[in-house]
Amino acid sequence: MLYPECLNELIESFKKIPGIGEKSAERYALALSKLDDDDKVLFADSIKDVKDNLKKCRICGNLTDKDECAICSDETRNSNLICVVEDYKSVIMFEKSGTFKGKYHILNGLISPIDGIYPDDINISSLVERITNPEETEVIMAIKPSVEGEATSLYIKKILESKKVKVSRLSYGIPVGVDIDYLDSITLDRALLDRKEITD
Amino acid sequence: MLYPECLNELIESFKKIPGIGEKSAERYALALSKLDDDDKVLFADSIKDVKDNLKKCRICGNLTDKDECAICSDETRNSNLICVVEDYKSVIMFEKSGTFKGKYHILNGLISPIDGIYPDDINISSLVERITNPEETEVIMAIKPSVEGEATSLYIKKILESKKVKVSRLSYGIPVGVDIDYLDSITLDRALLDRKEITD
Repeated sequence: MLYPECLNELIESFKKIPGIGEKSAERYALALSKLDDDDKVLFADSIKDVKDNLKKCRICGNLTDKDECAICSDETRNSNLICVVEDYKSVIMFEKSGTFKGKYHILNGLISPIDGIYPDDINISSLVERITNPEETEVIMAIKPSVEGEATSLYIKKILESKKVKVSRLSYGIPVGVDIDYLDSITLDRALLDRKEITD
Repeated sequence: MLYPECLNELIESFKKIPGIGEKSAERYALALSKLDDDDKVLFADSIKDVKDNLKKCRICGNLTDKDECAICSDETRNSNLICVVEDYKSVIMFEKSGTFKGKYHILNGLISPIDGIYPDDINISSLVERITNPEETEVIMAIKPSVEGEATSLYIKKILESKKVKVSRLSYGIPVGVDIDYLDSITLDRALLDRKEITD
């Protein structure tokens, strides 16, 4: 027992966060123990606040502390343009870039029968439900091009197209700033297939 | 505002821990929000527990949740051998190696007039007080060889030697496993000065 009991428990708590190992947990717990008492109370309270108030938006599945998330309740955004993403982190990435002015739909997972994740286990049915005027709606699939990602995209596309919703996906291709010599061959194949005419 | 308010506050709390930047704070806060509710409560409670119960040992200044730390109250350890260290982390290092069977004294700082830290600001007076039989006591200075460290060591040495306490310091020299080619010249000078006769 190198540490006093209460510090040990804090270290164990830090270790539960993925990406924090033994050493970092010790360092963070010691550093936290040196913060002002006010900051410690604030930290503890904010964890409990997250536990009590953080939930999923009833429309899109995004994280929120209200019934509807800030994006869904923003009336300046285009409700007919829905970007379907795997999880909350993708929303952050899109919002940081700031170009997309439609709304999101967060699946909170991908179809993966091998892991026991079927269409009913992820947030698909509410996507179908929220589309009220299908012929004016475009759904953009922003899912990573893995086996599970492709399966999920295809599944959603089939359902939505039967309802006359336009379904698109992000283009695949060369990441900006990356040297072609270092690309994997699959990305290069996709970039070739998705090639575009050069316009002035 | 990318995140819901409660998550934002948790991110701000994580950012107060030295070594956790914006990106990591976001990642950790999101990961924490995905833990079980029980784990969240445990995390929050352990922070409050640290706030309420973690204090300094009244003898040595070590972190403890009791009046005296586990090391000071361990009667199998040699009370006449006191290792003086800068902070709690040094104790952990010594205890992990496990060779030292004496007790510690934690200064919680080093003398540094340029930063406004004088002898009275660190835990020196209690060191003098705890030595009851000076002529049988050895104090080992385990302080880093910086300007502040040397000043602190020298100051303590002067006080203690006037009370007939034996004062030693860790040897300086080549770290085990390090190639001599890569050493700085000060370390090499010290290793030369501190050289020892080879014994069979």
